[in-house]
Amino acid sequence: MTMSEKILAKASNKSSCEAGEIVMANIDVAMTHDLTGPLSVESFEKIGTEKVWDPSKIVIPFDHQVPADSLDAANNHIIMREFVKKQGIKNFYDVNEGVCHQILPELGHVVPGEVIVGTDSHTCTHGALGAFATGIGSTDMAMVFSTGQLWFKVPETIRFNIEGTLKKNVYAKDVILNIIGHVGADGATYKACEFAGSTVSNMTVSDRMVLCNMAIEMGGKTGLVEPDEKTLNYVKARSNKPYEVFKTDLDSSSLEIMDIDVDNLEPQVACPHNVDNVKPVSEVGVEIDQVFLGSCTNGRISDLRQAAKILKGNKIANGVRMLVIPASKEVYTKALNEGLISTFVDSGALVCNPCCGPCLGGHVGLIGPGEVSLSTSNRNFKGRQGSPEGKVYLSSAAVAAASAIKGRIVAPE
Amino acid sequence: MTMSEKILAKASNKSSCEAGEIVMANIDVAMTHDLTGPLSVESFEKIGTEKVWDPSKIVIPFDHQVPADSLDAANNHIIMREFVKKQGIKNFYDVNEGVCHQILPELGHVVPGEVIVGTDSHTCTHGALGAFATGIGSTDMAMVFSTGQLWFKVPETIRFNIEGTLKKNVYAKDVILNIIGHVGADGATYKACEFAGSTVSNMTVSDRMVLCNMAIEMGGKTGLVEPDEKTLNYVKARSNKPYEVFKTDLDSSSLEIMDIDVDNLEPQVACPHNVDNVKPVSEVGVEIDQVFLGSCTNGRISDLRQAAKILKGNKIANGVRMLVIPASKEVYTKALNEGLISTFVDSGALVCNPCCGPCLGGHVGLIGPGEVSLSTSNRNFKGRQGSPEGKVYLSSAAVAAASAIKGRIVAPE
Repeated sequence: MTMSEKILAKASNKSSCEAGEIVMANIDVAMTHDLTGPLSVESFEKIGTEKVWDPSKIVIPFDHQVPADSLDAANNHIIMREFVKKQGIKNFYDVNEGVCHQILPELGHVVPGEVIVGTDSHTCTHGALGAFATGIGSTDMAMVFSTGQLWFKVPETIRFNIEGTLKKNVYAKDVILNIIGHVGADGATYKACEFAGSTVSNMTVSDRMVLCNMAIEMGGKTGLVEPDEKTLNYVKARSNKPYEVFKTDLDSSSLEIMDIDVDNLEPQVACPHNVDNVKPVSEVGVEIDQVFLGSCTNGRISDLRQAAKILKGNKIANGVRMLVIPASKEVYTKALNEGLISTFVDSGALVCNPCCGPCLGGHVGLIGPGEVSLSTSNRNFKGRQGSPEGKVYLSSAAVAAASAIKGRIVAPE
Repeated sequence: MTMSEKILAKASNKSSCEAGEIVMANIDVAMTHDLTGPLSVESFEKIGTEKVWDPSKIVIPFDHQVPADSLDAANNHIIMREFVKKQGIKNFYDVNEGVCHQILPELGHVVPGEVIVGTDSHTCTHGALGAFATGIGSTDMAMVFSTGQLWFKVPETIRFNIEGTLKKNVYAKDVILNIIGHVGADGATYKACEFAGSTVSNMTVSDRMVLCNMAIEMGGKTGLVEPDEKTLNYVKARSNKPYEVFKTDLDSSSLEIMDIDVDNLEPQVACPHNVDNVKPVSEVGVEIDQVFLGSCTNGRISDLRQAAKILKGNKIANGVRMLVIPASKEVYTKALNEGLISTFVDSGALVCNPCCGPCLGGHVGLIGPGEVSLSTSNRNFKGRQGSPEGKVYLSSAAVAAASAIKGRIVAPE
């Protein structure tokens, strides 16, 4: 069996299951946030169940519109705070904690072998710790709140066997953009995307999160990395929950293996208006108006360090604005203590509070017609960060920082 | 003559003028920002003048919706950036510099004896440096852009002669709230409000800005403080512009003197929904949902220091969210270097990028129905910070910090 099959079999109290089968799985973690949460709550209340199945398994962070940028957002926050209170949900993080996909692992809510669902498409991020994690709809979440279970069609697996040593200034973001460019936006539709091979073994847990985060951008049901010592060190430092390590049998019948060689990979950029429109950075070179460093893809301390190293002693180009939005309070605090925030401010960047930023086009730095954004986030769909007449390019933190200095999309020197 | 009469006489090339007279004054500084600027630009373009009268006298900061929180804001920013470029305006500050009324003095745009107009009602702040500074409409600004002049009815003056020593934890904000509570929201309508006396002499320039900032809240045309050594030290360190010191002749016929004794003043709070609904903090005690430390009234380094001193080693009360929004990049940088930002984050506050914050109800922390905000800003009108069913209280930074810890409006211990 594959990792996904093993996890879903265990979660549905079966000794085995296989791709294509429908299983009813017990949910270990159910996450909803300020934007999609109110619809989950409304749907849950329509079902008529008085109490959620298990408040200790529900996690609710505010991250999409924090602090409230509109009356609608303020109302949504009130709805969720009341729900949390009424249902006795302890794992509630108000406006000051950070982006859901960063704080769930950080605060110990994610361990290997779990089934994790969230009303957010990038819930697949958590598979980096060896969980089966996927985004679901708000009404599906209402059923989870009510019963603690959800049905899944067990997915087939593509295992990306990534080999090679990344060159200087090439990062996990470049690897995943390259893969998505290769297989296409629908290249892994409903597949579990496993990331394996020596390159992944050499990556940090944060880097692996970048890979899994973007599995959805090629249609994947989830992204996964087999837990190793790094995973367990990360998890044990943050969680007391029991965990179970599952690995894929390489002879599994539902497994496809795709070999990826990254030895000569150069920094990659996803160009408008699709994530699979990927080019080497040397072929891009367009002028930019705004740079966004942050999001659940690349707003971690390693990203901020990469960017700060490049920005230190340099100034952001005239006419370019750069937004730095750490993905969590923990990341922000580390960045403060390491002097990175000072570096950003000295170089002319704007440092905002931990939140999703302009990624989803909500607030905090929308672009207008004709403007070009270079973003470390995960989607560049038309209008994703504001005007449909604007353009969004995606890159690593290093390319973002180097480009902010030059005023156009370039590779770090 | 009063200070205001002397400044307006000089600006209109007259040897003297008196209250009630209409004068056509030359403008030294014309400020507009991202929110009111686009209407000024549109009106200017309707007039048909090709070029502004003097680009070096125009200052344009972005502060109300930064970074752009909506497509409207992004469009407004584009309009203003294009205007700045077309007109050769050098004094342009994009999303990363801070609140207009903080950065104009800070960056040397304000010196004693000038006439300063801005399309923002709190332009009166700049009178703290001995200028005649007042808020004007966006269409009036179009005429200023075109001709460099604007007519004024010379105002009468109320001189608040403030005497006494402020007790511990009592600040300029408490003094001005007390005055406004005393004279009422229309108590100084169209008057120049001078702040004088030993208490004001002992105040820093920042403290004097707090007084002048809120002159408009009692209907004042402007707020002023006679320049002294402190003023000149502040100005000379920041500006090379020529200046002229004007002082009020105490026998001026248009002068009313009001004596204010602050010896026994305790911290003051303006209660909903009017700025003149002022009570001693000991009579308030209501529970709060949000605390906002920032704005052109109290977002300066002295305010952040007051608050950090109280917050250090303490946690913000459960269920209360606190937003800290430094008024400028300079304030933010100082706060970073002094460790204040770390103190805020450690205590559980959210630190946002320099901007107007929730003060004007635009974005960055609006309150919902039934919620209570304690704010260091200058207005608590119904709906000012979000829902008209919310409530806004105004206080000093010290009261804000102490209340954040207790979860209700209290005096610092």
